[in-house]
Amino acid sequence: MIKGIHHIGIAVSDLEQAIPLWVKAFGGTLEHREVVADQKVEVAVVMVGSLRIELIAAVSAESPVARFIASRGAGIHHIALESLSTQEELDRMRDAGVQLIDRTARSGGENTRIGFVHPRALGGVLVEVVESSQGT
Amino acid sequence: MIKGIHHIGIAVSDLEQAIPLWVKAFGGTLEHREVVADQKVEVAVVMVGSLRIELIAAVSAESPVARFIASRGAGIHHIALESLSTQEELDRMRDAGVQLIDRTARSGGENTRIGFVHPRALGGVLVEVVESSQGT
Repeated sequence: MIKGIHHIGIAVSDLEQAIPLWVKAFGGTLEHREVVADQKVEVAVVMVGSLRIELIAAVSAESPVARFIASRGAGIHHIALESLSTQEELDRMRDAGVQLIDRTARSGGENTRIGFVHPRALGGVLVEVVESSQGT
Repeated sequence: MIKGIHHIGIAVSDLEQAIPLWVKAFGGTLEHREVVADQKVEVAVVMVGSLRIELIAAVSAESPVARFIASRGAGIHHIALESLSTQEELDRMRDAGVQLIDRTARSGGENTRIGFVHPRALGGVLVEVVESSQGT
């Protein structure tokens, strides 16, 4: 079952430039920064009220985020939905014929289990399903 | 003050095709449909858990949404943030030098007051500030 939003992922060219924009416009607070080596990205989490915004910058030209920016420009990259069980969501969607990127939930860091739905299944929108161990 | 997410706006080519995708993938429920004449769009609100997703289709080739799809393709169009007072947010941002589309809050239908921040202020992300009369 989907509970609601978990975060919004935004592709940015430069974290040092992007973080202050969200702080200035909406009083956002930087909560967390980390390099995710297997995705070749660095992520900065900025809280805007209760909304978690993940700013994502490529650390290599081969990063999927670098290719996204090259083809579509910087901007909103994906929506992440909070689920009770990522694997159950993926199984249910597979059985319903929804095109998936991940058929098996994998670790998303910070004790989360994640899986991506293919944007072709949702009219061009990339959706990540996230299960937090503690919920949100 | 920003409370958090209000909705996510998604540009679609065809509402009849787009609505069932969100129902099938996430058990979304269609809550509302309306034509917004001055934006030349038809909007369908689908609830995915607690998340309000607004699917937006152009009803005329001159609609801003038609131009968005022509240049970037269908997909995520904007993020809407829930505020206590849209006008106070716009005033605060104007004073801070944040580039705005709307300097004055206007009606967004369903008893909301809305205003848009310019995507140049947020690294290519279009953000709508929304004040609901009853809050969310």
